[in-house]
Amino acid sequence: MRIILATKSPRRHELIKGLEMEYRLTAYEIEEHFEPTLNPEVIAMFLAKKKADAFPEAIANDEILLTADTLVWINNQVLNKPADEEEAFNMLKLICGKTHKVFTGICLRSNSMEKVFYECSDVTCKKLSDEEIMHYVNSYQPFDKAGSYGIQDWFGYIAVEKINGCFYNVMGLPLSRIYDELKVFKKN
Amino acid sequence: MRIILATKSPRRHELIKGLEMEYRLTAYEIEEHFEPTLNPEVIAMFLAKKKADAFPEAIANDEILLTADTLVWINNQVLNKPADEEEAFNMLKLICGKTHKVFTGICLRSNSMEKVFYECSDVTCKKLSDEEIMHYVNSYQPFDKAGSYGIQDWFGYIAVEKINGCFYNVMGLPLSRIYDELKVFKKN
Repeated sequence: MRIILATKSPRRHELIKGLEMEYRLTAYEIEEHFEPTLNPEVIAMFLAKKKADAFPEAIANDEILLTADTLVWINNQVLNKPADEEEAFNMLKLICGKTHKVFTGICLRSNSMEKVFYECSDVTCKKLSDEEIMHYVNSYQPFDKAGSYGIQDWFGYIAVEKINGCFYNVMGLPLSRIYDELKVFKKN
Repeated sequence: MRIILATKSPRRHELIKGLEMEYRLTAYEIEEHFEPTLNPEVIAMFLAKKKADAFPEAIANDEILLTADTLVWINNQVLNKPADEEEAFNMLKLICGKTHKVFTGICLRSNSMEKVFYECSDVTCKKLSDEEIMHYVNSYQPFDKAGSYGIQDWFGYIAVEKINGCFYNVMGLPLSRIYDELKVFKKN
């Protein structure tokens, strides 16, 4: 079986490599609109499935399409990718000194079956000074990252005190769970 | 201030780079003997301090020596680096399907002060088949790793379901805590 990973994220690409499975990458645009009153896990799974529905090719019999959506949830609201430096600063100011949740919705689809699921991890960040947050935004330009930070870069190194849950889920792919779900696909 | 990181671990080298501080590396041998009846955090701090005591150079006035020791603790015993493939297999068999603790002891030392502390993270691994464990030992040769695994390689990807605590502590350096402790050194 070969995985088709639909993503523009270099982090997801890095992670899928480490699974030791055959894969190819694909990328295409979708509208990421959702109903903001929904629960975060429902939003993450809805967007993952929407990405699978938008896949513009046919899936071959030996292929499994993998689509994912990661979002940050804090104070009953979704933090998506920031539009500019001000929004990135405000998002980081909001998450510093608190625990937030990271949800990744996953859709796995072959020609014979589909599985949609999610993982949730708690991430606890310490308080940073405005200068530290500004330094991060200016130097790392985290505009392609939900919640404006990367757990695998300087912010993750210095500000994240604690995780409760799957680390790779926070990076964008809950690999341990995906590995198990893919075993079921291989059997079918 | 410049950090002197005493380590042979490529993972610790990778992590210290990301802190954005000036550093240099050093490596030398020490005897890693310890009293096995001690508590794990005491052992980790004892070995970190022992590495600092063995530093064969003088520390310059603008330098801070950083030494670290990471150990895996399960069933009231320390898992260190495995001697061979059989021991690596047995260690992984022991940790799979359970939660273990990873302790890193840290010693920071300048010419004017010293701080010794530790961090502890819980790591939950799923059950793997003997074939999966054997594949890991043969392909990844985890002989330089406490507990016989790397959280940042295939084992960490597929077998680690959950972490409770600092992820980078499991990789060998609790960066978020070290960043805060270094601020105190800079003030003094």
